[in-house]
Amino acid sequence: MKTLRVETAEPYEILIEGGLLTELPEDLPRVINTRKLALITDETVKELITEDLARILEEAGFETKVFSFPAGEASKRMETVVELARSMVRAGFDRKCVVLGVGGGVVGDMAGFLASIYMRGVPYIQVPTTLLAQVDSSVGGKTGVDLPEGKNLLGTFYQPKRVYIDYGVLASLPWEQFRNGLAEVVKYGCIWDRRLFEFLENRSQLLFLYDPDTLEHIICESCRIKAEVVSQDEREAGLRRVLNFGHTLGHALEAALDYEILHGEAVSVGMVAAARLSEALGVAEEPVAERIEALLERLGLPVRFPKEVSAEKLLRFLASDKKVWHGRLTMVLLKRIGEFAFYENPPVEKIMEVLEKL
Amino acid sequence: MKTLRVETAEPYEILIEGGLLTELPEDLPRVINTRKLALITDETVKELITEDLARILEEAGFETKVFSFPAGEASKRMETVVELARSMVRAGFDRKCVVLGVGGGVVGDMAGFLASIYMRGVPYIQVPTTLLAQVDSSVGGKTGVDLPEGKNLLGTFYQPKRVYIDYGVLASLPWEQFRNGLAEVVKYGCIWDRRLFEFLENRSQLLFLYDPDTLEHIICESCRIKAEVVSQDEREAGLRRVLNFGHTLGHALEAALDYEILHGEAVSVGMVAAARLSEALGVAEEPVAERIEALLERLGLPVRFPKEVSAEKLLRFLASDKKVWHGRLTMVLLKRIGEFAFYENPPVEKIMEVLEKL
Ligand SMILES: NC(=O)c1ccc[n+]([C@@H]2O[C@H](COP(=O)([O-])OP(=O)(O)OC[C@H]3O[C@@H](n4cnc5c(N)ncnc54)[C@H](O)[C@@H]3O)[C@@H](O)[C@H]2O)c1
Ligand SMILES: NC(=O)c1ccc[n+]([C@@H]2O[C@H](COP(=O)([O-])OP(=O)(O)OC[C@H]3O[C@@H](n4cnc5c(N)ncnc54)[C@H](O)[C@@H]3O)[C@@H](O)[C@H]2O)c1
Repeated sequence: MKTLRVETAEPYEILIEGGLLTELPEDLPRVINTRKLALITDETVKELITEDLARILEEAGFETKVFSFPAGEASKRMETVVELARSMVRAGFDRKCVVLGVGGGVVGDMAGFLASIYMRGVPYIQVPTTLLAQVDSSVGGKTGVDLPEGKNLLGTFYQPKRVYIDYGVLASLPWEQFRNGLAEVVKYGCIWDRRLFEFLENRSQLLFLYDPDTLEHIICESCRIKAEVVSQDEREAGLRRVLNFGHTLGHALEAALDYEILHGEAVSVGMVAAARLSEALGVAEEPVAERIEALLERLGLPVRFPKEVSAEKLLRFLASDKKVWHGRLTMVLLKRIGEFAFYENPPVEKIMEVLEKL
Repeated sequence: MKTLRVETAEPYEILIEGGLLTELPEDLPRVINTRKLALITDETVKELITEDLARILEEAGFETKVFSFPAGEASKRMETVVELARSMVRAGFDRKCVVLGVGGGVVGDMAGFLASIYMRGVPYIQVPTTLLAQVDSSVGGKTGVDLPEGKNLLGTFYQPKRVYIDYGVLASLPWEQFRNGLAEVVKYGCIWDRRLFEFLENRSQLLFLYDPDTLEHIICESCRIKAEVVSQDEREAGLRRVLNFGHTLGHALEAALDYEILHGEAVSVGMVAAARLSEALGVAEEPVAERIEALLERLGLPVRFPKEVSAEKLLRFLASDKKVWHGRLTMVLLKRIGEFAFYENPPVEKIMEVLEKL
């Protein structure tokens, strides 16, 4: 078993292993002192994982109840949080209970948020079940829900007591969803760790097979990198923005397509664009774009903007993003594979040039 | 001007003065570094205070917008918080804005909650405008909303950057609402400060006249006491429960009457009952009940349970309260005026005896 410590204000550990879920009953008492668990999950994951987990926990003497909602981003709303909370109150869950989130990023964000506000805060345990959640959303303590006006507009910073990453559960994850998480792993390689990038270049075949050792390695490295960044900048004031590599243009693309594209796909194209911009602006000290493009393509991720989205449209969404974040656009660019550079307000013509070529 | 420092994890100050609101434009820049303010208020307070305050702030160069909702506890729901947040997003309020809550406890609890979750937290400034809010809810950092299943079930602990208490605004507060806050001041006297209790005994005439010096004194002392308690127990694990004096039976009464009674009125009867119980159980080392009763009566607060509520009914609600808080009922009793004692699981017969006599 691999263990990672995240040094936030209240430090906690991430445990990583295939088959880890069966060890929860034994390990949980190390971090919580109640046996009353609210398992928050979506309906897909409930069938696949959560009901089994509940059974294992019940057999070990925990008192569990599963609270679920329809899978998908559309559920990530305050109404769902309120419904979950009301069901918990009616089922007799008081301040001494613990919330255990079992699912992808949607479950994680919402269960964490619920835990942070339920009776003004109860302990939170996270069991991420998508690759994206395992390599990204389970580290950093960001919780939240969407508003019709935009994503993640209401939420809290709330750290879990422990994160259990069982990569065995990824077996049932469709390749499309797997790839979605891989985009973030590529991102960590690009901005922080050349060796991780090279590992991905060399192991794509094993990735396609969901090979356990390969999974363990990329999950550990990703969590380690995100934990490093987050420990240095818990409340997202500075360094943490490095995680936005590929996300600035990625978000613009998602918005332009009204979120009818997977986040990882948008980020993939966004990374190619950011890499090209790094070269166009002379920030890159070695060729980066072609190599990133080649890796993403090998992993089946898109590297071109869809034809129906014009460069002008993307720029408009970029500008509105910029407005929301107070008039300044900080882009994350690359010096080389594994080393980032912040760049303030890159000239619009250069962005336009890059976008038009993609 | 009186200044009180509250020593929570992030310490902050409470400023207390008649006419203080006119000084906000000058003082605010000491605690916040933006000029964009979302003024959250209820419709009654908006007309009486908030619009004027917004004008003063605008004239000094702040960019303000008033967001309001119908006055009353019925508004204290997540739906209202979501509506306010959506309006703020549409009006262009980003992470760099500040939330300023102007109103009674309902506004304070909800604006504080909103500030704590808006884009994962923006600074919060509190301007309490009822006596209850000035002496109680503005200190301690508890925020929240009600669910149909019960009061304050969702919320956060979130400290304001500063609290501005202008007791001049109480001029428009109906006596009934004023009395509601006075019950909490009596409470502080009972549990913590005999001199405050005696001050109230001697000054009831001046209280009826909303005399400025008298107001300043009771507000300062109340905030000081609550701040002392809260600094020692920010997350409500131990000492803070002392603030529940009169509230255990008070809550049972509120619940029995389906909240068709002012909180302060319920607490008033609850304090008389707790004082009598202190005597019946031999906890009190001097007569306390009669003296408390006399003071509350002089202030126009009720000291008997309404006839339609039987002792049995109250006990039932007490028992259900007990269940929610994990099987143990800790009551706050009095040794003497100004000195409390915790008492675990008082015998039901004794409670019954006291309730029946009231
Ligand atoms: N908090 C953070 O730091 C952070 C970071 C990145 C993303 N996010 C959020 O994460 C969300 C996206 O997460 P996601 O991609 O995991 O989406 P998701 O939670 O919707 O999961 C994707 C789909 O996979 C299914 N699924 C989950 N586990 C499975 C398994 N083991 N086998 C089969 N199917 C499974 C789910 O039911 C769902 O249909 C977004 O809302 C995003 O805002 C948060
Ligand atoms: N956070 C805490 O620690 C804490 C402590 C105690 C109570 N509370 C909460 O506070 C709430 C009750 O607070 P409240 O009694 O102030 O109720 P409130 O906010 O509803 O105010 C009572 C009424 O007075 C009006 N009002 C406010 N200021 C006025 C003024 N200056 N002149 C004339 N009218 C004015 C309001 O519009 C409202 O109609 C409850 O929801 C309770 O849960 C919170």
